[in-house]
Amino acid sequence: MARPDEDGLIARYFAPLAGPGADGLRDDAATLSPSPGCDLVLTTDAIVAGVHYFPDDPPGSIARKALGVNVSDLAAKGARPRGILLTLALPDDWTEDWLAGFAAGLADGLSEFGLDLLGGDTVRAAGPALIGVTAIGEVPAGGIVRRGTAQVGDRICVSGTIGDAALGLLLRRPNGPGWAGALDAADHDALIDRYWHPRPRIGLAPVLRRYARAAMDVSDGLAGDLAKMLKGEGRSAAIDLARLPLSPAAARALAQEPALLTPIATGGDDYEILCAVAPANLNACLAAAGATGTPLTCIGTVTAGSASPSFREADGTPRVLGTGSFSHF
Amino acid sequence: MARPDEDGLIARYFAPLAGPGADGLRDDAATLSPSPGCDLVLTTDAIVAGVHYFPDDPPGSIARKALGVNVSDLAAKGARPRGILLTLALPDDWTEDWLAGFAAGLADGLSEFGLDLLGGDTVRAAGPALIGVTAIGEVPAGGIVRRGTAQVGDRICVSGTIGDAALGLLLRRPNGPGWAGALDAADHDALIDRYWHPRPRIGLAPVLRRYARAAMDVSDGLAGDLAKMLKGEGRSAAIDLARLPLSPAAARALAQEPALLTPIATGGDDYEILCAVAPANLNACLAAAGATGTPLTCIGTVTAGSASPSFREADGTPRVLGTGSFSHF
Repeated sequence: MARPDEDGLIARYFAPLAGPGADGLRDDAATLSPSPGCDLVLTTDAIVAGVHYFPDDPPGSIARKALGVNVSDLAAKGARPRGILLTLALPDDWTEDWLAGFAAGLADGLSEFGLDLLGGDTVRAAGPALIGVTAIGEVPAGGIVRRGTAQVGDRICVSGTIGDAALGLLLRRPNGPGWAGALDAADHDALIDRYWHPRPRIGLAPVLRRYARAAMDVSDGLAGDLAKMLKGEGRSAAIDLARLPLSPAAARALAQEPALLTPIATGGDDYEILCAVAPANLNACLAAAGATGTPLTCIGTVTAGSASPSFREADGTPRVLGTGSFSHF
Repeated sequence: MARPDEDGLIARYFAPLAGPGADGLRDDAATLSPSPGCDLVLTTDAIVAGVHYFPDDPPGSIARKALGVNVSDLAAKGARPRGILLTLALPDDWTEDWLAGFAAGLADGLSEFGLDLLGGDTVRAAGPALIGVTAIGEVPAGGIVRRGTAQVGDRICVSGTIGDAALGLLLRRPNGPGWAGALDAADHDALIDRYWHPRPRIGLAPVLRRYARAAMDVSDGLAGDLAKMLKGEGRSAAIDLARLPLSPAAARALAQEPALLTPIATGGDDYEILCAVAPANLNACLAAAGATGTPLTCIGTVTAGSASPSFREADGTPRVLGTGSFSHF
């Protein structure tokens, strides 16, 4: 296929995805208003080839990931997704096939997450591809769930399962690890799928608004993100590693190779929810989450002090994980 | 100075610029609500080193340009600026000095344009620096001024002066052009300043909302952007090149080198307003614009037909400029 110019590219691939207020992407700006009684919630995250994904990842997965990492932030703030603006920086060697796959994945992700495409910009970059997304959601006025508001004694919960994407990333690397032999094909694919396809926990947003005192998404590793959530306020945490919710595939890998506890607890790309819940609300919160189909699991408690969060193994042995979460910068 | 990590960098340079709703950039999202009775207007544009600016441009100018090109879009839509989210992709060799200069220019631009910093993301990119901005403004509900709504017979107006930045770009290149000798130092600096420092026409936004039938900003060259404004609706335009508003510096350069009419009319980075005004509103519109201190000048008329816009010289000779505006992609 011939490569279109920027206007042709927008008309062919992106205009069909435009939402109301975007005027078919024929203008330089879109309009948006929150629903009555709501605040808009805004977040932005970019992913870069070779840093946040492999350049040869399927282009549709890359698009979906760029959406997912942003929608995960909205979900953690208790927000319902509304729309996005997209910045696409493409190297000179982009192909029509790649872009067609990217646009198809984008369309799927927009539909799945309930997002309108509101606008964007396409630029040429003599370097790795970069996909930047600004995502806009909404919460009832004043209802945003903040990150830094946990209190001593609050229970710490995480959604879904932890560590799958970090293991998927290890499997994705050339010359897969030795423990890969302990997994069957379905386990292998399930872990890589978690790496490729963030599943932002949109369904938990109302539960967080109702019950969580503080929340953030787990994107750079549980241990580091927990430290970030509690930073600078005289709070720490005690975490029982035996209570970490693991998928069957991750549990089998860990049984084969106990050292995998470190990437499980510190690796990135979980896109689960980490939240602090007052003890009196814990049971109601867990029940409400369970009813959405995405369970929350209580893994520890917010404690007083300025130390890094502490982690204990099943037998009570302290385990030093460090708080150094994965940094993309 | 030691280079801080991402959190340190945010705390040092960007948190002091955070607006209300951004929670000191300590969270992953910000809240924003339009003023009562208003719609939000959203736009996004990225600039890339070596494509949209010279890598050795002053870092403060680069920051201000990244803001200016977005605010220019808001102004053309009749919107008042509210806030931005910033994506900063930095190559490995970024320096603390560069970032300090960038942050200082960003602070100045935010203040000048009336913007709050609402959030952002900093990523490493093994390529040229990229600065992406999503800008949010607001208009009275339903009041956005669209691009594609000009009608045959409308008068075509542009704000300020045209072509300065395109000449500034030519002067900025190694081995400056021969006509540079006809300019004194003040002319030279004035043209380069227009290239470095877009002056988005925020003050014209209320005038456009009241009087303009359609508007866009001139960012990729007047001739090409005019074609874009009229595209696909059976409309063309007749433009008198003698009526193009020129700065004294551009007029002197053009007197020295008549071929400069082409870069003046087709070069990019003007960040002026191009609008279509019903004949009955023209005088009131020009008077209202003049009262803001940023004059509008009528340069032609919207005509029927599907031809490219036509351009005439002072003596009536047609001049073929082409509609190929500058493409950054």
